[in-house]
Amino acid sequence: MGENDDSEIIEHHVDEAMEKKASHRSHTHSFLESVTSSEREGHSSTQSSHRLLAYSDALISIIATVMILPVAHTKLEESEDLSESFRLLMTTKIGVYLMTFLIVTVAWAAHIRLFQVIERIDDFLALLNLACMMLITFLPYTFTLMAAFPEKILGILLFCTCVMVIGVIQAVIVIYGFSRPFLLNEQIQISENQAYYKQHILKVIMRVPIMCLIASIFTFIFYQLAYVILAIVIFLPYITQSLKWCRSKAIGQPVEDTPESMLFYTYHPNEPLSKERVEAFSDGVYAIVATLLILDICEDNVPDPSVVQSEFGGSLVAALRQYGPEFLAYFGSFATVGLLWFVHHSLFLHVTRTTRLMGLFNTFSLAFVGGLPLAYELTHEFPRRSRNALEAVQISCVILFFAGIFQLAIWVAALFDERRLLHPLVRYGGRDHVYMLAKLGLYPAVALGAFFLTCVLGEFSTSIFHLMQLGVPLAFLLLRLLVRAGLALLRVLLVALRKQPQPGAQEGGGGGVEARLVEVEDEDSRVPFSDLVS
Amino acid sequence: MGENDDSEIIEHHVDEAMEKKASHRSHTHSFLESVTSSEREGHSSTQSSHRLLAYSDALISIIATVMILPVAHTKLEESEDLSESFRLLMTTKIGVYLMTFLIVTVAWAAHIRLFQVIERIDDFLALLNLACMMLITFLPYTFTLMAAFPEKILGILLFCTCVMVIGVIQAVIVIYGFSRPFLLNEQIQISENQAYYKQHILKVIMRVPIMCLIASIFTFIFYQLAYVILAIVIFLPYITQSLKWCRSKAIGQPVEDTPESMLFYTYHPNEPLSKERVEAFSDGVYAIVATLLILDICEDNVPDPSVVQSEFGGSLVAALRQYGPEFLAYFGSFATVGLLWFVHHSLFLHVTRTTRLMGLFNTFSLAFVGGLPLAYELTHEFPRRSRNALEAVQISCVILFFAGIFQLAIWVAALFDERRLLHPLVRYGGRDHVYMLAKLGLYPAVALGAFFLTCVLGEFSTSIFHLMQLGVPLAFLLLRLLVRAGLALLRVLLVALRKQPQPGAQEGGGGGVEARLVEVEDEDSRVPFSDLVS
Repeated sequence: MGENDDSEIIEHHVDEAMEKKASHRSHTHSFLESVTSSEREGHSSTQSSHRLLAYSDALISIIATVMILPVAHTKLEESEDLSESFRLLMTTKIGVYLMTFLIVTVAWAAHIRLFQVIERIDDFLALLNLACMMLITFLPYTFTLMAAFPEKILGILLFCTCVMVIGVIQAVIVIYGFSRPFLLNEQIQISENQAYYKQHILKVIMRVPIMCLIASIFTFIFYQLAYVILAIVIFLPYITQSLKWCRSKAIGQPVEDTPESMLFYTYHPNEPLSKERVEAFSDGVYAIVATLLILDICEDNVPDPSVVQSEFGGSLVAALRQYGPEFLAYFGSFATVGLLWFVHHSLFLHVTRTTRLMGLFNTFSLAFVGGLPLAYELTHEFPRRSRNALEAVQISCVILFFAGIFQLAIWVAALFDERRLLHPLVRYGGRDHVYMLAKLGLYPAVALGAFFLTCVLGEFSTSIFHLMQLGVPLAFLLLRLLVRAGLALLRVLLVALRKQPQPGAQEGGGGGVEARLVEVEDEDSRVPFSDLVS
Repeated sequence: MGENDDSEIIEHHVDEAMEKKASHRSHTHSFLESVTSSEREGHSSTQSSHRLLAYSDALISIIATVMILPVAHTKLEESEDLSESFRLLMTTKIGVYLMTFLIVTVAWAAHIRLFQVIERIDDFLALLNLACMMLITFLPYTFTLMAAFPEKILGILLFCTCVMVIGVIQAVIVIYGFSRPFLLNEQIQISENQAYYKQHILKVIMRVPIMCLIASIFTFIFYQLAYVILAIVIFLPYITQSLKWCRSKAIGQPVEDTPESMLFYTYHPNEPLSKERVEAFSDGVYAIVATLLILDICEDNVPDPSVVQSEFGGSLVAALRQYGPEFLAYFGSFATVGLLWFVHHSLFLHVTRTTRLMGLFNTFSLAFVGGLPLAYELTHEFPRRSRNALEAVQISCVILFFAGIFQLAIWVAALFDERRLLHPLVRYGGRDHVYMLAKLGLYPAVALGAFFLTCVLGEFSTSIFHLMQLGVPLAFLLLRLLVRAGLALLRVLLVALRKQPQPGAQEGGGGGVEARLVEVEDEDSRVPFSDLVS
């Protein structure tokens, strides 16, 4: 690569001429952007890592959500009691799904760390990354084996082998990157401590495969210990840092940190996290989850022509009517997941940078989103007014509530450091602060409201659920108007009373429950009101 | 939105202060970028459409590939003859898959057109787009119904209804966009012909739903005609334009075009196509296809503990051995799809902008990529040296060949207008021209070679296939070296002979077959050689 120095100058001239031409001829903004960026990147054999990371995010998001399929495909017997069969599901398949989701997102976080250090790639790194991806996509299977055969050592051995190979590949990537410093992050490129950085990063990366090696040796001696070691390896950095952070928040005195110069691999909750990749990963998960049900519908819900002829007298409409609930579940879950994506999208438009803690809340939210299609399918599977139908609706509400509340948690976490993390519009007192609160609060509030309503009016649980499915998209369409109306009403009330505002009136979406929610967020929401009033 | 003019000025000050702070504190390049861009976008309630489009691309790519699942899940009976059952598959499920892929990509192309006109969005447009996506994801099901019950009118009626509603939503988006010109493409914003643009675009968009309305009326009278009308609606613009283009290329005389001022909705093969969206869509398809097999493996290939105990004497390894072929197929297809993605990624790094024609070739390539996992699964399903195994290997080679050759076609199409479409490095005579040719040519050449080898050495078809699976990733790792060695060898030969170079020696990857390929590309490859020699 060093031998082409002179040819690059010539190329640069050509580039400039072409860039001028391009800016002259380019029709739309995005074309110009794509041209100039690829002009910049294409000089030598190094490339921007952007698309490689987008592809990796797509792969990882698919793998993270795939273990919900075995859960969704477990058919309940008509005669079974939902709570009983659900407990059975709960203990095995849902557990596997959640653990896989967590482990895959841990691998994803490691991948982000790595490519925040290595910012440019070449063909060799791209191929190494693909090998790494292949092993990551295999992790869920090893995990399924572990869950199905906890006392056999094969599952844990396979898992350890995968993790070790991934670790070695990552170490090779780091060593290769540091041997070609133009691939590195600018901060490290100009740093004088390059050797120290390299050593620190390699130490952190190699910690995991070495522990896995120890764990895989222990499997032959005393396999329970191997599980313990693995759990420690994966979660220890997060647990210690969370404890440290909680302590520092509680006592108020700052904990001594890694030196300011060390920005990577700190495992600090404030450690930066590429916002672009959080968005790409979330998009992947939302897209897969939104389409989960249509995948099943396309495959399973096409009646056999002979059956239509014999059982339904040739009437296709009659034959399809039996699948009605599934179609309803599809449209319902697509709309819900789509609207949750919409809320996520609105929030991240106003987030200027992400931290590890926000990423963690995002992961929790996504894990619940993954369960939504399953829950929605359940709600349509039982005869109306049965106890099962009631429980299915309540489970859906609980999942929806947690999916929404963790989205809200992302925002709340960002508000603690709003100057650094949030756009002025949605900070305390910003113009769209209340609007954002309404957007983020709508789903948790409605889900909580529906849950308690079904507790009281158990017989109408399905109707309440359908009402919610119809009402929420409408509420989103009119949300800005509702928030404005609420604020105007509040202002009128304030002028009339000249007293402390009553926060219950502002939301308009979910009635009484929202009032509770607003009380929690009270210190957030009061500032803009006084701003508006004064 | 208009009432906040004065508050925006204040915000802008805050923004600037924050931007300075951000650039001071931001650690990595990407954070700075994300901050500044979201600063720019977040001002009012309008937003950049970037993430909305990425999410739409993810949804559409999933839906486009999902119909391969029914094909993949059709299990062959051991006793059946592959060619017989494959013919059965061919006529129905593969047909449905290919048609769905085509129709969904047509819908995707319409979506791209729309959002090349509307460049910024607000909440209302985001929600409308989600509604549109919900209907697009439902299209494959209506298509399955049509294929299963061609003489029932329900399928075609549902399809027409979906298309009509999508058309109406798109029209609403256009009308809404033109009523708020700051949402529009800059080109149109500054144009004096805005009304003309609006009229033209609405006319093009509404053509489809109106034709569908006519088709759905005809279903009640004479349903065959409805299919004809639909086929015309969807493909006519492309067919007429392709014919026009071919004629102009054949005769050499330019065809009179739509006026230069009209840049959108021309259906011309040179009409620009957002490169970013082609990449996002391709990434989605490659990611889904790469993980298709692991989805099945995670769900189906976990043996039941009781079966392991009773049939395999408690040995999990023995129980898993029966699934061996499936794991092999998974790793093989993941590696192949990953490497095809790698080639695609390398190509698009050097493509500065995309045209409709390139997009079409890309779609064809992706449609074949979707069939790869299925083909790879087949290769491991039959006893070695059987006729079925031979045919399965040959089918895999054919699919692989077409997937690769259409990627090559993208590049060849770009070479016809290389000054506008390609980076200087990969043009005729560019430094990486031969390297790119080798990358793009490797898979088609190897597939063709393997195909003819299996014709001659039918007994060793499985071994040849395994050799190919192992050899190709290795070839990619060493490709730059191989190309350099080939070129050096060529130079030596040239110096020794002082004659016309023999193009057969340069590739090194696939032996004799590549020589044929190079002969086709001869005028491309000869330029850099003479450059290098002189």
